[in-house]
Amino acid sequence: MIKTDILIIGAGPTGLFTVFEAGLLKLKCHLIDALPQPGGQCSEIYPKKPIYDIPGFPEILAGDLTKNLLEQGKQFEPGFTLGERAETIEKQDDGSFIVTTNKGTKHHAPVVAIAGGLGSFEPRKPAIEGIAGYEDKGVEYIIKDPEFYRDKKVVISGGGDSALDWSIFLTDVASEVTLIHRRNEFRGALDSVEKVRELTLLNKINLITPAEVKGLHGDGKIEAITYVKDGEETKIETDHFIPLFGLSPKLGPIGNWGLDIEKNAIKVDNSLNYQTNIPGVFAIGDVNTYPEKLKLILCGFHEATLMCQAAYRIINPGKKYVLKYTTVSGIDGFDGTRKEAPKAVVQAIN
Amino acid sequence: MIKTDILIIGAGPTGLFTVFEAGLLKLKCHLIDALPQPGGQCSEIYPKKPIYDIPGFPEILAGDLTKNLLEQGKQFEPGFTLGERAETIEKQDDGSFIVTTNKGTKHHAPVVAIAGGLGSFEPRKPAIEGIAGYEDKGVEYIIKDPEFYRDKKVVISGGGDSALDWSIFLTDVASEVTLIHRRNEFRGALDSVEKVRELTLLNKINLITPAEVKGLHGDGKIEAITYVKDGEETKIETDHFIPLFGLSPKLGPIGNWGLDIEKNAIKVDNSLNYQTNIPGVFAIGDVNTYPEKLKLILCGFHEATLMCQAAYRIINPGKKYVLKYTTVSGIDGFDGTRKEAPKAVVQAIN
Repeated sequence: MIKTDILIIGAGPTGLFTVFEAGLLKLKCHLIDALPQPGGQCSEIYPKKPIYDIPGFPEILAGDLTKNLLEQGKQFEPGFTLGERAETIEKQDDGSFIVTTNKGTKHHAPVVAIAGGLGSFEPRKPAIEGIAGYEDKGVEYIIKDPEFYRDKKVVISGGGDSALDWSIFLTDVASEVTLIHRRNEFRGALDSVEKVRELTLLNKINLITPAEVKGLHGDGKIEAITYVKDGEETKIETDHFIPLFGLSPKLGPIGNWGLDIEKNAIKVDNSLNYQTNIPGVFAIGDVNTYPEKLKLILCGFHEATLMCQAAYRIINPGKKYVLKYTTVSGIDGFDGTRKEAPKAVVQAIN
Repeated sequence: MIKTDILIIGAGPTGLFTVFEAGLLKLKCHLIDALPQPGGQCSEIYPKKPIYDIPGFPEILAGDLTKNLLEQGKQFEPGFTLGERAETIEKQDDGSFIVTTNKGTKHHAPVVAIAGGLGSFEPRKPAIEGIAGYEDKGVEYIIKDPEFYRDKKVVISGGGDSALDWSIFLTDVASEVTLIHRRNEFRGALDSVEKVRELTLLNKINLITPAEVKGLHGDGKIEAITYVKDGEETKIETDHFIPLFGLSPKLGPIGNWGLDIEKNAIKVDNSLNYQTNIPGVFAIGDVNTYPEKLKLILCGFHEATLMCQAAYRIINPGKKYVLKYTTVSGIDGFDGTRKEAPKAVVQAIN
């Protein structure tokens, strides 16, 4: 059982900054994230995109913001459970919570802060008859381990970066790579588009456009697919069909925790400290909603900061906290490091 | 008459970031500040101090934060009225406001955002009988122009950086410099303390410690002061008495604008968008108060951002605003510049 002061669900920018603000109050944090690395969308979806509206940064790459936030919080030694999804929450008799992931890892904390962003990212699935029956039987929506496709025939479908990049990558692994897209145009990095063109000319990628996969065949597992091009149906053999149509955010299991939900977001009390309808459970950042809510990273920072004050009072009942400014008091890290606030010297002259 | 969309009182970090957020909504800003340069406390009081709690900056000097915020907003061409204090506000029949400074400069705007920080900084005055009667008659709390003291006798009182630095500076200007402090110890930069020690040994500063000024004398203007040291009173001639006991923030004339005030701060509706009791007048950053308020720069950024949405609706009644992400839409500056949001290329392969 992992024990901590504030259990944070979601390791995006809001969750990461919570570590810092909690640390100033001498509270420890542990973060759970379904993605294999911290940073949320910033790391997973657009690490190389510039963000222009983080206060004080005329421009910062999303990936660099993640790096900075990790650096800012690291003196407070956060724990991480990565690549696992928070699945269930159980309130204990003493008011604390046990949160268990899809892999069974248990976390115990007096305060839970949901910083889940737009939710966990679920793959968009194409509407092909019978596709659900082939899931994990030759149909995969996410490529977890490319070696799985060693010497197999694969059909990839999609027109964005993932479809382009995985088609390129798998030419070295799979015995046959077919890329099917409903348009002639692809939307992706220029490099990738050109590389696919080149591999197509070399017959390493079998490119079929504009076309759509319409049928799946096979007994217990995929053996072939049918695609339609120019109104004509063609059936080809394959071991795998991999539709890469992007990820779409879903609130996921948190939706079943008994929280007040409105339009896929968790309702909180913004007049105080972003607490949900369950005392001790807070929701901060893009995952929450309240009147005038803006889904902006800078708002998540503010919400996290106010939430930490409430967490402090839950964890230290009756103890009064006086806000200390880092410019005046410096910072004492849990790892023994100290950041100084430069002070004037005091010296006698006479 | 200066006309703008959002008139911002106070050019500290919150006021400066408002320029950026307003600009994203195509609203223009003009800032009034009593200080001669933007940045508020960050520039005036502690430009060289590191701040550790700006999200995304493990450490940033207060002066650099100001520079960055100016840079972030400059594409939206803010106007500035500096070195003047907002004195009066008059509501017009159309709901807009005219704000006039102590120098008579008039500003007209449909929305006023008070981002006044802890207020305008007023000097701390020592409790010496009759001192008010000598103000500007030999007693000054702020040194505006050192030349004013050319060939005069001055007595400076205080034990911090200003007292040290001005004593040093005036040895080259005044005919006689006396520094009186109630302790032997001074609190200031090491350099300054050592320089004062040196000038004292050279008889260029007449250092009297531990001692306190207790009496002021003169007919219509200061001619002498009395100080007490070791229980003994001594009277010395002087042309000026300059108590430098620091600056203390005061809400100032804004306190008379009819706003709901609580403990020297302006009450706002934090459940919506930080509007004050006067519709169209908002208060953001350290100057406001609400349940759970924290006087932190990062909170001012959030408050400014939500306030701009409300300002947009006042200025564009009936028009619906859809939030655009800078990562998706980039930024169009009022000065014709454009910051791009890098997009994937769309290219045909077949």
